[in-house]
Amino acid sequence: MKKSPKRRALGAAILILLPALVIALSPSRSDEGMWPVSEIRKLDLRAKGLEIAPEEIFSPDRIGLVYGIVQLGATGSFVSPDGLILTNHHVAFGAAQAASTSGNDYIRNGFLARTRGEEIEAKGMTARITESFRDVSAQVLGAVRPSMDAAARTKAAEQRTKEIVAAAEKANPGKRAEVSEMFAGKTYVLFLYTYLKDIRLVYVPPRSIGEFGGEEDNWMWPRHTGDFSFLRAYIGPDGTPADFSKANVPYKPKKHLKVAPQGVRENDFVFLLGYPGRTFRHTTSPFLAYEEEVRMPYVADWYAWQITLMKKMGESDRAVALKHAARIKGLANTMKNYRGKLQGMERVGIVARKKEEERLLESFIAADSAKKASYSGLLAKFAAVYDEMRGIAEYRMVMNYLRSNVNLLNFAATINEASLERPKKDLEREPDYMDRNFAQTKRRVGLALDNYYEPTDRAVFKELLLRGARLAQAQGLPVFAAITAAADKDKAAEAFVANLYGRTRLTDKNFVRTALDKPAADLKVMNDPLVELAAALYPEYKKLRKQEDAWSGTLDALYPLLLEVKSQFQAKDFIPDANSTLRLTFGRVKGYSPADAVSYGPFTTLDGVLEKTTGREPFDTPAKLFDLRKAGDFGRFKPEGFKSVPACVLYDADTTGGNSGSPVLNARGELVAVNFDRTYEATINDYAWSADYSRSIGVDIRYVLWVTEKFAGAGFLLEEMGVGDGK
Amino acid sequence: MKKSPKRRALGAAILILLPALVIALSPSRSDEGMWPVSEIRKLDLRAKGLEIAPEEIFSPDRIGLVYGIVQLGATGSFVSPDGLILTNHHVAFGAAQAASTSGNDYIRNGFLARTRGEEIEAKGMTARITESFRDVSAQVLGAVRPSMDAAARTKAAEQRTKEIVAAAEKANPGKRAEVSEMFAGKTYVLFLYTYLKDIRLVYVPPRSIGEFGGEEDNWMWPRHTGDFSFLRAYIGPDGTPADFSKANVPYKPKKHLKVAPQGVRENDFVFLLGYPGRTFRHTTSPFLAYEEEVRMPYVADWYAWQITLMKKMGESDRAVALKHAARIKGLANTMKNYRGKLQGMERVGIVARKKEEERLLESFIAADSAKKASYSGLLAKFAAVYDEMRGIAEYRMVMNYLRSNVNLLNFAATINEASLERPKKDLEREPDYMDRNFAQTKRRVGLALDNYYEPTDRAVFKELLLRGARLAQAQGLPVFAAITAAADKDKAAEAFVANLYGRTRLTDKNFVRTALDKPAADLKVMNDPLVELAAALYPEYKKLRKQEDAWSGTLDALYPLLLEVKSQFQAKDFIPDANSTLRLTFGRVKGYSPADAVSYGPFTTLDGVLEKTTGREPFDTPAKLFDLRKAGDFGRFKPEGFKSVPACVLYDADTTGGNSGSPVLNARGELVAVNFDRTYEATINDYAWSADYSRSIGVDIRYVLWVTEKFAGAGFLLEEMGVGDGK
Repeated sequence: MKKSPKRRALGAAILILLPALVIALSPSRSDEGMWPVSEIRKLDLRAKGLEIAPEEIFSPDRIGLVYGIVQLGATGSFVSPDGLILTNHHVAFGAAQAASTSGNDYIRNGFLARTRGEEIEAKGMTARITESFRDVSAQVLGAVRPSMDAAARTKAAEQRTKEIVAAAEKANPGKRAEVSEMFAGKTYVLFLYTYLKDIRLVYVPPRSIGEFGGEEDNWMWPRHTGDFSFLRAYIGPDGTPADFSKANVPYKPKKHLKVAPQGVRENDFVFLLGYPGRTFRHTTSPFLAYEEEVRMPYVADWYAWQITLMKKMGESDRAVALKHAARIKGLANTMKNYRGKLQGMERVGIVARKKEEERLLESFIAADSAKKASYSGLLAKFAAVYDEMRGIAEYRMVMNYLRSNVNLLNFAATINEASLERPKKDLEREPDYMDRNFAQTKRRVGLALDNYYEPTDRAVFKELLLRGARLAQAQGLPVFAAITAAADKDKAAEAFVANLYGRTRLTDKNFVRTALDKPAADLKVMNDPLVELAAALYPEYKKLRKQEDAWSGTLDALYPLLLEVKSQFQAKDFIPDANSTLRLTFGRVKGYSPADAVSYGPFTTLDGVLEKTTGREPFDTPAKLFDLRKAGDFGRFKPEGFKSVPACVLYDADTTGGNSGSPVLNARGELVAVNFDRTYEATINDYAWSADYSRSIGVDIRYVLWVTEKFAGAGFLLEEMGVGDGK
Repeated sequence: MKKSPKRRALGAAILILLPALVIALSPSRSDEGMWPVSEIRKLDLRAKGLEIAPEEIFSPDRIGLVYGIVQLGATGSFVSPDGLILTNHHVAFGAAQAASTSGNDYIRNGFLARTRGEEIEAKGMTARITESFRDVSAQVLGAVRPSMDAAARTKAAEQRTKEIVAAAEKANPGKRAEVSEMFAGKTYVLFLYTYLKDIRLVYVPPRSIGEFGGEEDNWMWPRHTGDFSFLRAYIGPDGTPADFSKANVPYKPKKHLKVAPQGVRENDFVFLLGYPGRTFRHTTSPFLAYEEEVRMPYVADWYAWQITLMKKMGESDRAVALKHAARIKGLANTMKNYRGKLQGMERVGIVARKKEEERLLESFIAADSAKKASYSGLLAKFAAVYDEMRGIAEYRMVMNYLRSNVNLLNFAATINEASLERPKKDLEREPDYMDRNFAQTKRRVGLALDNYYEPTDRAVFKELLLRGARLAQAQGLPVFAAITAAADKDKAAEAFVANLYGRTRLTDKNFVRTALDKPAADLKVMNDPLVELAAALYPEYKKLRKQEDAWSGTLDALYPLLLEVKSQFQAKDFIPDANSTLRLTFGRVKGYSPADAVSYGPFTTLDGVLEKTTGREPFDTPAKLFDLRKAGDFGRFKPEGFKSVPACVLYDADTTGGNSGSPVLNARGELVAVNFDRTYEATINDYAWSADYSRSIGVDIRYVLWVTEKFAGAGFLLEEMGVGDGK
């Protein structure tokens, strides 16, 4: 598998086309794949059903549809010339929560700005637009010397990456640069992004529409969730990205998507553009077994524990419940996803299947002496890495959750690391502490403080201490040893935490802000017990990090070999796993059969919403929807053959997390739905895709428009999108 | 609604055709209805899809298909000239359990007789074949005088019924007679039955096939249960029905059904013949509200309590588990049915709907002075009865369950009542103690003793005592008063039961047998504490019975008026509710949509069985089914378009409990499935039928034959049915 990246002009931008050898799939092969947009010209999308030229989506010399797509963590799309963004309710959820108070509850009641002046800050949200990209594999890999050990390889590649990014940002003022690994240890692409920092809430429906069905229906079909919201991007009066300010003006996107109020029909061709997060299709059985047997069960259980705790804490106090709402939502989402994956992996026997593939691959290698010389023992080397990981998996998870799930310890560790990293040269720092990122790091800490609730934080801390104290590897650390030694461990952990939380000043925003800017020596004077604890733990985290770098370096050396020999064996090439870069995926509007004698159709309806309504959360529905249904007030949004407005829609495009909010586009490139989920059977998409059951779920544009116009009375947004009543 | 019953000859039999006025439905009206076979000529079944003459099903002068149908509590059908009966696994379950020991577990392992000599007694089973019927309304109602009070009316009609039965049995030696109420208080039909008493087990599949999915899948679609068994009826060598004896010979039915190994296809016309138990379509809102709010919730909870208890008792002892198996199955079946009904009644709003109907009916009555004079206040009179019933509902239930669910108290009450009833003239006795029934009453007690398990019986007794002790009405009875008065009620109930069970001799079969034949005076000498308790409670049960007779008499006077005015209002007539007499129902093979975007197809398959298999009860499947699937050994039973053998099949015929085991027949009158259940949505069939979701479930004949031939290796049974491999 040879690489010969070339550059091409794309207006002001640069792009890389992965060489034909790498991706040369025939159009008929399958619908699997999240395609880098540079590759779509190889797909023959016209033959698949696309009615516009693929160049209208993306082409080096045009402003294609890709410029209408934004990354907001997940995905959104511009739907008006004035920077109006359509995305998911669950994508805007955190911002709506941050803007809420118990007296002004935008989660429960929804939020609508009737004028631009009423649009409020979507705290913590940023929007990135992909401007250009180019292959930098040679540069990155050029930093790696054969003499280096595995950890050193990782470090060297990282260091080189930072240099490339710094150079790119210097050459393109106002843009953000990022290097993304496309194939592990093999292909690296530099992306340049426009980075908008003033995002505002425009319309967020109430939770009883936007999150109808809640965690019960999450990852499920049939689905009846109006999971959409409208945001707007703002920019400085000088036309450059700027932090939130009253003086800012709506951003004018190079491209905005046309909305198709007529929606789609069954079997229609659709495609999605978005920023899918991670997939693991090019991986090995030891990795999958590690995921299935070790990591995911632990994480799912730990998240379940935290959810139970947080729900209890919020039971009798709506203000506390609001603080925890977004966090619970995130934890529950991952928990259910993992449980779906675990069920799916068992059902499909995914590890056994991968092992069988590998057995055949090994026979293929063994049958040829040249191949034997290059690849023999390759799979055993993967297995050795995951065996090592299993040995200390639980300890690593406890340590990492201590640092990430205990808020005050997270602030303390950030302060301690900032004191050590900030004095270094910028390019030598850990990414969070580089100048280009440090403001965002501080913002993150600030937001976490807004949602801080001490009893929850202490309970999480205590539980992790108790979990750690049971592990052999933890005995070297004083923080656990004291608890292990105690007769009453529970009491010892309680006392340990109480002592720290009684003395720390890390709940004081000013104290934290000041501390984040202090070098290590000055920090000592501030004398905070949690910062001291973080400093004491720091060497252990460094050790763990080094270990991870070593595994990563080893795997980065192994993966290119694996892909190389697999590509020979299967006589085909691969598309890279998802990695939060801009991708296109396509398919058709299509139901599926989840079980013998059961068929799911591809549309749900408003009538289904009302049928599911019990009046109790998460199946409560605003009375107004019943009234509108009763009055038959469907506007233009009830298609022929339907008894009411379509609510959600199903299609067999290949998506994953990060595709939330992706526009679902029809054959003419018009927006017909907003992607927000997958079916339960499709949670294992990340490991294996199947035309039989891999289905993604979108809110039908007809429901989006109908709710916005009829329920919210925000017909002016339809006017802004050019689909007002008169059109 | 006028009645002018006439008699007609039917070979040796007599029949009644309900007058045309009563049932004059157009063929297009709806598929609802469990039709008395005398009425089917009015149905135009040819237009519905039947390809044979309706007279081949039933006609006064022919041996129609109805002679191939047997009542076994539920239903079965003759499928060979040698008395082979095809019915459900769950119909044969009790007999298979009774024949099992922990070393010889026919529930777990199944049972197959390889020769006629190996066929074993199906204890407790009898088979009835409808020979003839005629209207006796005038005779029955002739016993009722206007001067009688409500309870006396009931008594008088009962007494007259007994006389009619006695006369009919005298006139038809060897036959059983029964009078069935077709329309409450209005229409009575005398049925004559052939009554076979020697029934044997031929093939019962293992529970892992015959009850696959267990209580979890019960009342559900998609379904994968091989719910069938083969039995055989025997008769004395002299050709008359006889008790089990080695000397008996296979019964030669007048008619046996032809089995259609090719099965059915979607949308095919089908009809069922069987003995549906009870429906309540011609009832009132106070009755429905009483069912929904009072009776069914209490029964479902009480059954759940008993199931939990019995499961616990059997946990570590398979012999105890076996004793409880049939009882648990029966309780769980009713419990889930009631829960389904309760959900359905709420979902459909059935009480409100009936109230609305009644409101319109009342307006219709109020608008006409003649009608007002006849029917005004009619519905209020119904309401008054159910108001009274509500007042003592819980007390009545506790009292009735004491007598029926506590085995020893049931034996004691039977002994006590026998001592009082048996000395009376036969026709004046309660039915259980009449000569024609008393042997069966004794057999019932004997069978209950076989499954008796003291710890369970004591726990049930104690629980009912505690429940009763909380009720105001119970305070007059010493049995409860002692517990109410105690400080520690639990201890008092425990002691009360312990004292009785420590002294009683009712667990001794000989003692019970002897006691059942003693008059009251002799019984005293036997001095059993439980029999004494039963005697002490007897006056209270008589009082309750009298109360029930009064309600019954009142309702019997009201219902004819209600039907009369409803028939005027709706300008149509009705078919009688199911009452365990022979009925025909028809429909088509058809899926349905249980929810928005969900469709159920009408066939499940062997592949679905294997997919559902978890290896844990009730989803364990014999390894041999996997082997046969792997080998593709489907015989003749995999139809085109299927990947494996069809397992279960769905149709929109109108059925209820008692239709279990009913043959499902194709347009040519050939057996294509064995009915065994309804869908969860259809549990409310008993109150309201709907073409949208009322569906019944059968085991597909292809699965029956495939399992019998390939799994059980009983190809000889297919030969006997005339569908052997060579045919």
